[in-house]
Amino acid sequence: MRVGIVGATGYGGAELLRILHTHPYFEITALYTSSQQGRNIHEHYPHLTGIIPLTLEEINPIKMAKDTDVVFLAVPTGVASQLAPELLSAGCMVIDLTGDFRLKNTEDYEFWYKREAAPKEWIQKAVYSIPELNNASIKGSQFISNPGCYPTATLLGLAPLAKAKMLKEGSVIIDAKSGVSGAGQTVSLGNIYSELNENFKIYKVNQHQHIPEIEQMLKELGYVSPVTFQTHLVPMTRGIMTTIYGSVEEKITEDELWKLYYEFYIDKPFVRVREMGVFPATKEVAASNYCDIGISFDERTGRATIVSVIDNLMKGAAGQAVQNANLLFGFEETAGLHFSPIYP
Amino acid sequence: MRVGIVGATGYGGAELLRILHTHPYFEITALYTSSQQGRNIHEHYPHLTGIIPLTLEEINPIKMAKDTDVVFLAVPTGVASQLAPELLSAGCMVIDLTGDFRLKNTEDYEFWYKREAAPKEWIQKAVYSIPELNNASIKGSQFISNPGCYPTATLLGLAPLAKAKMLKEGSVIIDAKSGVSGAGQTVSLGNIYSELNENFKIYKVNQHQHIPEIEQMLKELGYVSPVTFQTHLVPMTRGIMTTIYGSVEEKITEDELWKLYYEFYIDKPFVRVREMGVFPATKEVAASNYCDIGISFDERTGRATIVSVIDNLMKGAAGQAVQNANLLFGFEETAGLHFSPIYP
Amino acid sequence: MRVGIVGATGYGGAELLRILHTHPYFEITALYTSSQQGRNIHEHYPHLTGIIPLTLEEINPIKMAKDTDVVFLAVPTGVASQLAPELLSAGCMVIDLTGDFRLKNTEDYEFWYKREAAPKEWIQKAVYSIPELNNASIKGSQFISNPGCYPTATLLGLAPLAKAKMLKEGSVIIDAKSGVSGAGQTVSLGNIYSELNENFKIYKVNQHQHIPEIEQMLKELGYVSPVTFQTHLVPMTRGIMTTIYGSVEEKITEDELWKLYYEFYIDKPFVRVREMGVFPATKEVAASNYCDIGISFDERTGRATIVSVIDNLMKGAAGQAVQNANLLFGFEETAGLHFSPIYP
Amino acid sequence: MRVGIVGATGYGGAELLRILHTHPYFEITALYTSSQQGRNIHEHYPHLTGIIPLTLEEINPIKMAKDTDVVFLAVPTGVASQLAPELLSAGCMVIDLTGDFRLKNTEDYEFWYKREAAPKEWIQKAVYSIPELNNASIKGSQFISNPGCYPTATLLGLAPLAKAKMLKEGSVIIDAKSGVSGAGQTVSLGNIYSELNENFKIYKVNQHQHIPEIEQMLKELGYVSPVTFQTHLVPMTRGIMTTIYGSVEEKITEDELWKLYYEFYIDKPFVRVREMGVFPATKEVAASNYCDIGISFDERTGRATIVSVIDNLMKGAAGQAVQNANLLFGFEETAGLHFSPIYP
Repeated sequence: MRVGIVGATGYGGAELLRILHTHPYFEITALYTSSQQGRNIHEHYPHLTGIIPLTLEEINPIKMAKDTDVVFLAVPTGVASQLAPELLSAGCMVIDLTGDFRLKNTEDYEFWYKREAAPKEWIQKAVYSIPELNNASIKGSQFISNPGCYPTATLLGLAPLAKAKMLKEGSVIIDAKSGVSGAGQTVSLGNIYSELNENFKIYKVNQHQHIPEIEQMLKELGYVSPVTFQTHLVPMTRGIMTTIYGSVEEKITEDELWKLYYEFYIDKPFVRVREMGVFPATKEVAASNYCDIGISFDERTGRATIVSVIDNLMKGAAGQAVQNANLLFGFEETAGLHFSPIYP
Repeated sequence: MRVGIVGATGYGGAELLRILHTHPYFEITALYTSSQQGRNIHEHYPHLTGIIPLTLEEINPIKMAKDTDVVFLAVPTGVASQLAPELLSAGCMVIDLTGDFRLKNTEDYEFWYKREAAPKEWIQKAVYSIPELNNASIKGSQFISNPGCYPTATLLGLAPLAKAKMLKEGSVIIDAKSGVSGAGQTVSLGNIYSELNENFKIYKVNQHQHIPEIEQMLKELGYVSPVTFQTHLVPMTRGIMTTIYGSVEEKITEDELWKLYYEFYIDKPFVRVREMGVFPATKEVAASNYCDIGISFDERTGRATIVSVIDNLMKGAAGQAVQNANLLFGFEETAGLHFSPIYP
Repeated sequence: MRVGIVGATGYGGAELLRILHTHPYFEITALYTSSQQGRNIHEHYPHLTGIIPLTLEEINPIKMAKDTDVVFLAVPTGVASQLAPELLSAGCMVIDLTGDFRLKNTEDYEFWYKREAAPKEWIQKAVYSIPELNNASIKGSQFISNPGCYPTATLLGLAPLAKAKMLKEGSVIIDAKSGVSGAGQTVSLGNIYSELNENFKIYKVNQHQHIPEIEQMLKELGYVSPVTFQTHLVPMTRGIMTTIYGSVEEKITEDELWKLYYEFYIDKPFVRVREMGVFPATKEVAASNYCDIGISFDERTGRATIVSVIDNLMKGAAGQAVQNANLLFGFEETAGLHFSPIYP
Repeated sequence: MRVGIVGATGYGGAELLRILHTHPYFEITALYTSSQQGRNIHEHYPHLTGIIPLTLEEINPIKMAKDTDVVFLAVPTGVASQLAPELLSAGCMVIDLTGDFRLKNTEDYEFWYKREAAPKEWIQKAVYSIPELNNASIKGSQFISNPGCYPTATLLGLAPLAKAKMLKEGSVIIDAKSGVSGAGQTVSLGNIYSELNENFKIYKVNQHQHIPEIEQMLKELGYVSPVTFQTHLVPMTRGIMTTIYGSVEEKITEDELWKLYYEFYIDKPFVRVREMGVFPATKEVAASNYCDIGISFDERTGRATIVSVIDNLMKGAAGQAVQNANLLFGFEETAGLHFSPIYP
């Protein structure tokens, strides 16, 4: 399958290149850019010298439809809302890594993203897919909306309890922490090394645009209240941990809670429910597509604390996009994603 | 005033040396150790070469009572429970930085610390002091129990709401994050560089020994339920942030909430309530004795999110100990503690 | 091919597991240990949960010869000098990652390593192999001595000039910098996070045991003087840079110097001579088997500055060991080593 | 003494504020800026909330001469070449932290800095002052040119050997490493966190503008050849190490070499020659004004390796500027600079 990538000079794009370079069924045949046409990708990313010998091309939907079997959009949020419809109309298959088609309710998008939403008819066509939580096969779809990094970690952490209707409404709090690469190659004072190194920050308090994405999916799973969701920046490059708090409706033991999770994910190759009493650290999934989950229940407070970790650029972005692409074309879900985490 | 320090080779001890070296009223006259007698402190800490020219002496309560006006105990938890009574009996004034005398209930200590508690009569004599929250002057006490790092950040973050009886019982969750220096110079696999660098971890889930310390003080302030308190390790050396969640009983606006905090701390030199909508980062108090606090209220959920940051070795340990020493001897509270945070 | 690994719980061993897990021709069939028999590898390395489901076995040369086609020794230096002969005698093929068989002169070993050398007859049998610098094929050998991390970066950086006899004798200085993972999982005060983080250190001044390894190979290449070689610790996990200084005998231009390097490595898949005026950074080879080289010549001083970077655990250890294993068995040199560097 | 600072929003300016805030004889009375007039300094630097309650003022030489006794210029290079003469003409005393007045030869400046030099008559008036290496008192000067960070570390490391005429001409190589704060608050792709973290880079190969500054001063000290000087970026915020290589003319022992250094700096309060065989790490001078030096001599090669470390923002910039200000006004050299290094 011939793959084209729009936005290959961002970190999400770079990660797609790393994965697809050794994928058994996909071949990267074209890279597209709105600003660096004519440059070789290794001029922007010297680490790709001799690995991906492609030149950046201009965006031309008609030509892209001819030259590729599927296009990944690893562009800034806001760019996909126009570009995706053009590509789809030209006949491309599209996997969109931005937030532009995740929210079914355009008012939510406009409130949280502070920008104009994509056209409703195209939003309808987008299939939002966390593969482990999909009800139906996505095979044969034309347009996938790839989930956000925080929602992926959060929803995988909450799904078993939410689906079992065991969460007390109004009790869910997600305290999320991310490495800095989530901000991409943004050139701003807030993103420079000396400001972030040896520093732990909270940001977008009560205002993160992933809140409605989490709530939309939680509703489908069976939990309907608004959630409290706060995000923090960790002085490291990769990794997300969400520490998730929720009160449990019924009497339950830690052992029963663990079994609920263990069985929920027993046939999911990328979710590893860790042993009772063991909690994952972000490095234990670094550069891999795993989501590792740790479970605890505190009888003193009746509250479960669920810990989930992912690599924000892999299961949180490019890795899950490739996982979705595999499913889309009917390949085995894990094709090209057998990376062991990098440790240390 | 002549100061002696027991445990000067730990990080808390090193920080006491850094502060007291330029303090206007205290002079470090003796360093005590159980294992490195006869070594000069700069052999252990080369950064002190030419600054603190003292040799480590053996622990001898009678001699220590003669040679010093006050002794700081910067020893491992469990060591103070025996040593402090000996020193007090010999007539020393003692400021204890360990957890051994913080919990009034010895059963709590033995449950959470998994070791034998100090003698009850001495626990009674210990004055637990977060200066900003004390009801009475500590001047004239003989024995101060200096609070833990996490409880300091947590309690300063919760006190205004707790005292105002505005917290819904059962709603408080504290998600705490700390730099690695909190683990001290512990030589263990879990503390080596390659295991912690580029890694974010949760630890002691539902089991941290600071839980009963927080709950004991919260009860005094007016909040009586158990709390959920989880601790995480951040790949950086210094700094603690606590992200504190609590449901508010009455109808309140963010503005009113901010005013409550602002007025509560208006005359406290080391607590800086940040402007509305501004949240502190750990680096903004690095190497200083400040506790900075940010306030938010989310009308969607009726929940307040309070953020407090400290330097774990300063306001979380040595700095607060010196602040307590200042008050003990009737000096101005800020004497020797005018350090600006180090930035960047 | 069935592979056994002795010392899989070290970082070199972990990296072998990461590589071989997806290698097309090798399969890891056994892990050996001197101290953790019976444990599953994921108990030591949780990141391998579900990936390498092997239990650690005791070391038994006869059984190992039966159960494997080749054994990698990723043990501490000093352990291989006894173990390798036992395995070889039992009929194993061995790739030794330690320093025990690299120095042909046992007096050198004993002077620099401060321990007893391996038996001379076995040292003779060991083939020291940096594949890019080998004169002959290693196919059919039984026993490979895999080079040190610093010597690999240094010798690849110096070889073209040394072979061309263009280096002024006595002029070579190598200023080497390494990430912390080079120290392995050593549990010592000097290796804990708070001591190394935000700190840049020099160590083993004039005393690093890689000095004689570099000099032995340089002599073969044509440069016979002793070198000055200093090593520094960088607060990061992976990566080595060697900044190499040497005076050039003849009149040369930067352009000619660059061509010398470019042509020397033109058919070597893992050495990337970077474009004129471009210098590699360690991250640009992270987690890959590449050695990237940058070239400069300063007419003011007549001195060349050559910069080479590798990932110390890959081209500096496990990656090169697998490259050697590929050559040993006649597979293509790059089999299983197509990893793109991880960036960022 | 009333102090004004131009460029307080840069990192050098921030460090001046940290120091002068507790200085016994200087008082910061005004902050000047070319772009942020009217803002309070804590809006740019929240860590200064409640500490430095000053508003940024516009630059007006006449007013500045009236309002201050001395002005520190912590502006970007190139800005001081115009501003300093204006301030001096208006009667200000000026301490310039930029490179604009360091090079006596304007052609050198224009070649290395790639910009127009300051007027020659003003360059003549500037006194270049590393206090430990000055021949004469600077008391009574009007205009100090504060040395660069790298030259300070390099020259303190080389001065004893150079002055003793023991360095073989043509043999000196300086391999320098710096933390990232040396780049200031520059907002550029190369300065963002994810590009620098876990990365070790070389930059400005053979082209660093500090080369002529080092050579100018070395000539005065007695070493006249050009030097090789390479600079690297370390993933940490603060600290510089220079590893200095030089061949020694005469026969010497390591012991004699050490004594030469020890005696040279015996009465210099900010230079600590470390014990024989002990080498300083950057953290051991962090946030202090010390320069620590380690000495070695290798008989195999006849080469000395000298290691010097400083905090780039302290002894490498603001700290040395205050040291110079102390000398200028006849205060004790160490006034306001008694900071112990921050450790860990």
